[in-house]
Amino acid sequence: MGKSALRFEKAAIIGVGLIGGSLAMVLRQKGIAGRITGVGRGIANLEAAKRLGVIDEFTQNPAEGVKGADLVFVSVPVLKIAETVKKAAPFLKPGCIVTDAGSVKGSVVRDVEPLMPKGVSFVAGHPIAGTERSGVEAALPELFKGKVCILTPTEKTDPEAVQKVKTMWEIAGSKVVLTDARTHDKMLAAISHLPHMIAYTLVNTVGDEARSCKELLGYSAGGFRDFTRIASSSPEMWAEICAMNKGFITDMLGAFQSKLETLKRLIQEADTEGLKKEFESAKRLRDSLLD
Amino acid sequence: MGKSALRFEKAAIIGVGLIGGSLAMVLRQKGIAGRITGVGRGIANLEAAKRLGVIDEFTQNPAEGVKGADLVFVSVPVLKIAETVKKAAPFLKPGCIVTDAGSVKGSVVRDVEPLMPKGVSFVAGHPIAGTERSGVEAALPELFKGKVCILTPTEKTDPEAVQKVKTMWEIAGSKVVLTDARTHDKMLAAISHLPHMIAYTLVNTVGDEARSCKELLGYSAGGFRDFTRIASSSPEMWAEICAMNKGFITDMLGAFQSKLETLKRLIQEADTEGLKKEFESAKRLRDSLLD
Repeated sequence: MGKSALRFEKAAIIGVGLIGGSLAMVLRQKGIAGRITGVGRGIANLEAAKRLGVIDEFTQNPAEGVKGADLVFVSVPVLKIAETVKKAAPFLKPGCIVTDAGSVKGSVVRDVEPLMPKGVSFVAGHPIAGTERSGVEAALPELFKGKVCILTPTEKTDPEAVQKVKTMWEIAGSKVVLTDARTHDKMLAAISHLPHMIAYTLVNTVGDEARSCKELLGYSAGGFRDFTRIASSSPEMWAEICAMNKGFITDMLGAFQSKLETLKRLIQEADTEGLKKEFESAKRLRDSLLD
Repeated sequence: MGKSALRFEKAAIIGVGLIGGSLAMVLRQKGIAGRITGVGRGIANLEAAKRLGVIDEFTQNPAEGVKGADLVFVSVPVLKIAETVKKAAPFLKPGCIVTDAGSVKGSVVRDVEPLMPKGVSFVAGHPIAGTERSGVEAALPELFKGKVCILTPTEKTDPEAVQKVKTMWEIAGSKVVLTDARTHDKMLAAISHLPHMIAYTLVNTVGDEARSCKELLGYSAGGFRDFTRIASSSPEMWAEICAMNKGFITDMLGAFQSKLETLKRLIQEADTEGLKKEFESAKRLRDSLLD
């Protein structure tokens, strides 16, 4: 479809935080949505969103908020997506498209798809963007520019709805990748969830050893600060991601542990040739990524 | 001592790469050294250094290069420091100060200090700066600005020599920290060597799983690229560091492994409260570091 043809008269954003607020800004700026209703629990945040012009109106009641909406974007914590949609589902109008921003897709698709009334499509999505800040005050329409958004439709998902959601994210500046929920969860376990687990664990390990040399931690080159930036991500969000993707995450942790054990043995044996080979293979892969 | 009083008529730089070349530039720019002699194995690199004005003259023979020098800076790979100094030691003139840039200090101090002739001081040092690029072409006088340089003198080291080397690094813009070699090696194992081992292992683990989604790796937010930047560091240098600091590195790896095992168990049990606590403690420490 042409990008200019994408239009939703009414959009409901459930969870007007960094992600929800930023998408609302895109919908408005690009003329994709007419009216934008914000749905959330915290009144202060909803008022801020309205004051900032991110939404036109708000309600704390999902059932109320989604009435008459052509697009519903669910950007609440991933563990809450299904129960939130459950409250709103009976009030969705035929033709409405529901999409989300959950970081884990398997369980979301499993729990949310069956809740859709006839004529309503659920297009599961995951815009991979900005997890270290939060709240509508941090929202900005450029948040998704140059980022990847993964959509995980099933064979039940209406292709036209998928196309519309895809176009929406492309207008937001994202590169859209289509895959299935299982592949998404496995891939994200590798490239995002495992690194976060490692970063948190590294900071806790070094923290135990190095409470006395914080100054040095702060100054250290060799990347301790860069390396551990992701350990500043939301503990609550990551606890939820772990719970919802525990199978793939523990698989990846197992693979990592076994490689680390091998490396430790090479170090114990001061096997510089073996170590060099390990490091070279990592360097090759790392250098093949764009910087 | 006053910074303006620091003067070495002749300085010899053994190993004119990124670190050696950058210090040579500082010595010249700040008027700390009169003549600068480069010592190295590769003629092409030495010629480049001379062409760039980094050094005044060069030789491939350490014994030749250090003759008459008031300052000798050894910035060769850490595994080569002792054998390099051994060749030059008989030719050092009384009053000369020898210092180095090795990333591991215990074995360097143990092996190099006894080689010093009467009247010559060895001040072991470690400027923590720039490990991902190499070669004199990458050298720049600002390399050490805002970085930490650790000096690890022993009770045998002449305090005046320590003061001079300290002043030199301060003129280069570094914050100088004095400690003993053992503390240095333990601290660096925690804040630098462990993170590098983790980064290399992470990239190799993800590489095995994700050869098919390189594009995604490149795009991924959540910091895979930032997180793994240090896995681009020199495999050769890191193999040497591992061999020379294997005790403290394997200790740190052990501590990390045990924490990771605990985390894996929390994930397997989907213990979101326990996970949140772990992540919060890491976030607190991480956030306490300057960004």
